[in-house]
Amino acid sequence: MLRSRKRTAVAALVSLALLVTGAQASGVMEPAGQDYQDARAPVDRRVESLLKRMTLEEKVGQMTQIRLGKLRGNCEWNPGPLREDCMKAVLEDAKVGSILSGGGDAPNPNTPRAWAEMTNTIQKYALDHSRLRIPLIYGADGVHGHSNVLSATMFPHQIGLGATWNPELQEQLGASTGRAMRATGVFWNFAPVSDIARDTRWGRYYETYSEDPVLAGALAAANVRGQQAEPTDGTAKLTATAKHFAGYSEPFNGHDRAPAQLPIRYLQDTVLPAFQPQFDAGVGTVMINSGAVNGVPAHASKYLLTTQLRDRMGFRGVAITDWEDIRFLVDRYHVAADYEEAIAMAVNAGVDMAMEPSDAAGFTSGLLAGVRSGAIPGKRIDQAVRRILKLKFELGLFEKPFVDVEKADAIVNGADRALARQAAAESTVLLRNDGVLPLSTGAGKLVVTGDAADSVPRQLGGWSVGWQGVPDWSAMPEAVTVLEGIRAAAPSSNVVSAPAQADAVAQAGDADAVVVVLGEDPGAEGESDTEEPALTAAQQGLVDAVRAAGKPVVVVLLTGRPQVLGTVADAPALVAGWLPGSEGGSAIADVLFGAVNPSGKLPVSWPKTVGDQPFSYDQPRGANTVPSSGYDPAFAFGHGLSYTTFTTSAPTVKSAEVRRDEQVEVSVTVANTGARDGTLVVPVYVHQPVSKVLTPERRLVGFTRVALKAGEQRAVEVTFDVRRLAVTSGDMDGSGKPEVAKGDYEVVVGEERTRLTVR
Amino acid sequence: MLRSRKRTAVAALVSLALLVTGAQASGVMEPAGQDYQDARAPVDRRVESLLKRMTLEEKVGQMTQIRLGKLRGNCEWNPGPLREDCMKAVLEDAKVGSILSGGGDAPNPNTPRAWAEMTNTIQKYALDHSRLRIPLIYGADGVHGHSNVLSATMFPHQIGLGATWNPELQEQLGASTGRAMRATGVFWNFAPVSDIARDTRWGRYYETYSEDPVLAGALAAANVRGQQAEPTDGTAKLTATAKHFAGYSEPFNGHDRAPAQLPIRYLQDTVLPAFQPQFDAGVGTVMINSGAVNGVPAHASKYLLTTQLRDRMGFRGVAITDWEDIRFLVDRYHVAADYEEAIAMAVNAGVDMAMEPSDAAGFTSGLLAGVRSGAIPGKRIDQAVRRILKLKFELGLFEKPFVDVEKADAIVNGADRALARQAAAESTVLLRNDGVLPLSTGAGKLVVTGDAADSVPRQLGGWSVGWQGVPDWSAMPEAVTVLEGIRAAAPSSNVVSAPAQADAVAQAGDADAVVVVLGEDPGAEGESDTEEPALTAAQQGLVDAVRAAGKPVVVVLLTGRPQVLGTVADAPALVAGWLPGSEGGSAIADVLFGAVNPSGKLPVSWPKTVGDQPFSYDQPRGANTVPSSGYDPAFAFGHGLSYTTFTTSAPTVKSAEVRRDEQVEVSVTVANTGARDGTLVVPVYVHQPVSKVLTPERRLVGFTRVALKAGEQRAVEVTFDVRRLAVTSGDMDGSGKPEVAKGDYEVVVGEERTRLTVR
Repeated sequence: MLRSRKRTAVAALVSLALLVTGAQASGVMEPAGQDYQDARAPVDRRVESLLKRMTLEEKVGQMTQIRLGKLRGNCEWNPGPLREDCMKAVLEDAKVGSILSGGGDAPNPNTPRAWAEMTNTIQKYALDHSRLRIPLIYGADGVHGHSNVLSATMFPHQIGLGATWNPELQEQLGASTGRAMRATGVFWNFAPVSDIARDTRWGRYYETYSEDPVLAGALAAANVRGQQAEPTDGTAKLTATAKHFAGYSEPFNGHDRAPAQLPIRYLQDTVLPAFQPQFDAGVGTVMINSGAVNGVPAHASKYLLTTQLRDRMGFRGVAITDWEDIRFLVDRYHVAADYEEAIAMAVNAGVDMAMEPSDAAGFTSGLLAGVRSGAIPGKRIDQAVRRILKLKFELGLFEKPFVDVEKADAIVNGADRALARQAAAESTVLLRNDGVLPLSTGAGKLVVTGDAADSVPRQLGGWSVGWQGVPDWSAMPEAVTVLEGIRAAAPSSNVVSAPAQADAVAQAGDADAVVVVLGEDPGAEGESDTEEPALTAAQQGLVDAVRAAGKPVVVVLLTGRPQVLGTVADAPALVAGWLPGSEGGSAIADVLFGAVNPSGKLPVSWPKTVGDQPFSYDQPRGANTVPSSGYDPAFAFGHGLSYTTFTTSAPTVKSAEVRRDEQVEVSVTVANTGARDGTLVVPVYVHQPVSKVLTPERRLVGFTRVALKAGEQRAVEVTFDVRRLAVTSGDMDGSGKPEVAKGDYEVVVGEERTRLTVR
Repeated sequence: MLRSRKRTAVAALVSLALLVTGAQASGVMEPAGQDYQDARAPVDRRVESLLKRMTLEEKVGQMTQIRLGKLRGNCEWNPGPLREDCMKAVLEDAKVGSILSGGGDAPNPNTPRAWAEMTNTIQKYALDHSRLRIPLIYGADGVHGHSNVLSATMFPHQIGLGATWNPELQEQLGASTGRAMRATGVFWNFAPVSDIARDTRWGRYYETYSEDPVLAGALAAANVRGQQAEPTDGTAKLTATAKHFAGYSEPFNGHDRAPAQLPIRYLQDTVLPAFQPQFDAGVGTVMINSGAVNGVPAHASKYLLTTQLRDRMGFRGVAITDWEDIRFLVDRYHVAADYEEAIAMAVNAGVDMAMEPSDAAGFTSGLLAGVRSGAIPGKRIDQAVRRILKLKFELGLFEKPFVDVEKADAIVNGADRALARQAAAESTVLLRNDGVLPLSTGAGKLVVTGDAADSVPRQLGGWSVGWQGVPDWSAMPEAVTVLEGIRAAAPSSNVVSAPAQADAVAQAGDADAVVVVLGEDPGAEGESDTEEPALTAAQQGLVDAVRAAGKPVVVVLLTGRPQVLGTVADAPALVAGWLPGSEGGSAIADVLFGAVNPSGKLPVSWPKTVGDQPFSYDQPRGANTVPSSGYDPAFAFGHGLSYTTFTTSAPTVKSAEVRRDEQVEVSVTVANTGARDGTLVVPVYVHQPVSKVLTPERRLVGFTRVALKAGEQRAVEVTFDVRRLAVTSGDMDGSGKPEVAKGDYEVVVGEERTRLTVR
């Protein structure tokens, strides 16, 4: 039986004088008789119509996004009810156009309905206290589901979703997240992350999809399509965010937000391509990298925010800062002497909106001063505001600024649990199996131990209700732990929970199998950085001790990054469950007992040692000058076992000669040669025998997933653009351009390859 | 008493038909009646006179440097006597202009005299079998003294010399090395290394001076001045080599020769400045980085080898490849389809001479084919050959091609041992001292233990006679180990050697003190790479065990890099002795017993954890976003204790406003406030409060060493060029130029600072 973890108490009731009822909220605004309020007019005309009516103060207000905390409590940080005087200062006086984050911090009730009421209230205040009735847009981080809300379903974190190699699933998850967020009045989700994961020391590794830009880009774009899908439930649309643009994931020393050293060729050929598919999919907003790249903070880089983002990559939406990042140009990076200089620097570089500039008045007054002094061209302000207004029009916020509070709980609470379970099961990677798995549901005694066996916080990871993981409340989000999942999957077995090591060892003696579930402390951003991304001595000791009992041992890792395994490396069965979300325990049990045949494949390389940083399968040729120095992972990118066996034929291409503007159609025949149904991931790589600049031994260009019945054989096709073969030409100064070199290539699937020539 | 380790046997005698006697060798060539043989003519005229007489085949021969192995044994690799047929193939047929390496590999006698005889023999063959009598230049790696020769004095490796902060000493050491090499007929020394040390995983860390380009550059330039000094002993001059140009020391994953990711700003502002002082000092040759930078092998980069090296940095000498590196453009980097393409690529990029292109005939025929096909302009060949001939003329090799074999042993054998002892003592850094040091020479019982306590190979490190350290011969170079040094320093004490751990613990019980000397396996290049630059568990266990005995414990680290210390971090006394060379044991004993007051200061940051990579004190601002992520070393750059105490006043500058073409004169008053004489290093840093691109919190601009008697006080001055404040301007694409920003700076000495304004 599953033990339900429900919020046991709501700490306090909201005491709002201005509560908006569901009935009021669902009403549509009366047209104000102005062009821009005409929903039938083309968006561009509405934008221009509105823009020309706006004062400079109204414009700079639109460029400002302020945290919820400023509207309540003590008008700064403390939780508490919304306060009219605080709202007046931010919304009416500073004319701020966007609010973010927060929600149900204790003692406020963290329910979907409470969120909807809150966002409606703020929206109503903003509309009623502004001259032009421009709707607010409310933003939050829904990084694995609407993970701010206690009763929302939390999906696996992105690193697990990367292991699914399943864009369609990502689209469904995005749609689910979007639906939940919209139901609470949040129309801007600061997700997904398409930074690539190459350094396990980095605290935000778990928020990424993959080390590979093609895989990360494909999954991120699918997620964006899902999130930004046209609503069928009557609300405005939601915008996703491509983040963190760009180069955020490779701080030189593994510490979050430390500067990165990214030669332009690497930036263009490896970092930026993970973003392009989202731009092509029409993602509405971009969040800027908080870090510095090559000596220049991203927020101050016109090269990055204009030359690359706009001119070369074609992004047309809104570029927003990360939290307080304009001020950091002064305080952290010291590239500006004062805040006003920093504002001009950032806005001129390409920042359209400032997220939480600490002090709305200081930011807007700084912007105004910059325009008045000529440091910021007025047309740059208009360009930014135009983008913001266009976004609000396109989302439909002018027509649908409110949400129906009556629907929120029904839409959000416990939604899509089956999808969450599927996602967690597909993300589970069977790293190693000496025949121990699948376990029998008829086992007499199963011992379950380890720090993450029955821990909701460890299973959910950071960004779960609280920023750094589940807050220390009496209330806990609903989630099925691995212990609970195993109990549910093997109801006739004696499932013994042995939290302490001595218990586990004692219990192991007469067990049929021991499942050891190991995790890491949940956390967010810099607090999750580590210099030793490895299992602890205590974790290794536990596994060693239960293995000494001589019974089959299964090690399940619920961690947000590959851990260096030490003595655990050769455990009889090793399962990477990542941070699997609300249904993680059910899904892990599905895999352990064989209800689901595992199909997850590593989206990242699993390093053998702590010193393997940075690490990825696509290291450039020349990295292997001594035998030990090549790509030598504990488990390779793409690795993942199954309970069945597959064969893959040599690849063929439809045309062995292609032009640069064409596509390559690759065919392989795959077969399930085992006795169980299963799903196979087929990655397609390209190898370039000779290239004028260093290329990796192979790089991913496409992939597909194929479900095959036992004994089934099928031809599958993977198509990729020849443009994907582009590499920045020229010398080491990076002054060249990405271009596809003519000549010979090889298309590689498994160990087989076929020749391809670009003419 | 010191135990002398002498070569016990010479394995075989050279059986050369063409032995050149000392008398012949010291003779001067007869003028050949040609302009270029006229020693009184200006060098440029001699170069042109010779160049115009040369065939294309003779030119490309000059561009070729072949290993000694090709002239002897089986004409490939096996040691053995020089063979006339092998010499004919290389010197007469392929017209090769330079030979390198080798020497006394067993069974050849590794004596200075045997080296001199060998180089004279080869030189005579080359002169006698060439049309134009162009002398050969013989090259070798004398990386810490003439470290190829068994009886030569080996100085500390560069990482230790970096800790001296003593350019004058470097000049003396360079002069000593040059004298020894010249005495054996070697006129080209592939040293010093001015790569900067920022990743302790890298196997060649110990060959560098420092993580800081100003310190490394100053020491390297001084070494060059010493090596290249005008001989007073009648031989031709020697050329040093600036290496490895550039970016070699930061392979992305710490593995030797793996590609580096060095944004152009970092390359220009941090990597290249370590080379400039050597160019300004007139270093004759440059060796090219074997690795790739930003996707382009250094050997194929015209940007690096021409735009930077020649056009911007003004180098006028010969650029030589590293070992086989042109072939690696095909085999390792795959940027060229075949050898001929690789040759054209490298030579057109700026390679003047190919070191050991595996196959002289293949290289020269490839060069010829490239010229004939037009792939390599003839004028590029002439440019390269002009540089090579100019070097040979300037060194005086046309006039003095031979050396006096009778003098060789006397010059080399056991030379400059006092200098070696001084260098080792000055390089010794007292990291920690809880009052244990100095030891009393009157101690009753001293226990000496640890893997490096009595190990010549560990004390000398790699590049010591053998490439990867002292070869496994019965012969051993002369060296004083730490055990021997302690015995000599405390002749009345009972000095007990306890090689095994159990012995050490048993002996520690009634000891006055225990000295534990820990090292690492000697090795060279990739073989010395490690993913865990840390003391081993066994080493930590030994220290833990002897500490448990409750007696004073001194840990001496004879390692080529800072080791993560684990439980040894808080040992009562910690001494970094690096790889201190032949007199290392004497010097360490000098410091341990107080005969020398330690003055060494860390030239590198000592990391706390294996995950601290890359690591340096001058990380850009913005690296410290969470408290743990800033610069948090075990021991900071510049750290080093003394047996006395010093005070340093606040700095003053002669003029608080300077122009960009001026110098800054900084004055401080220093005082020895303790009871012992001592030497203080005064580093001068600059802090830039606001800079348009990220700068570090402080960067070294100059330094001095001051010897102060007990109680003495003195004003000292450090002068630096304002140009040293240059930072590459512009955006993250690195397209800007190094320039000194006008505005405010602070000059920092210790914790004190003064304002400086650049107008």
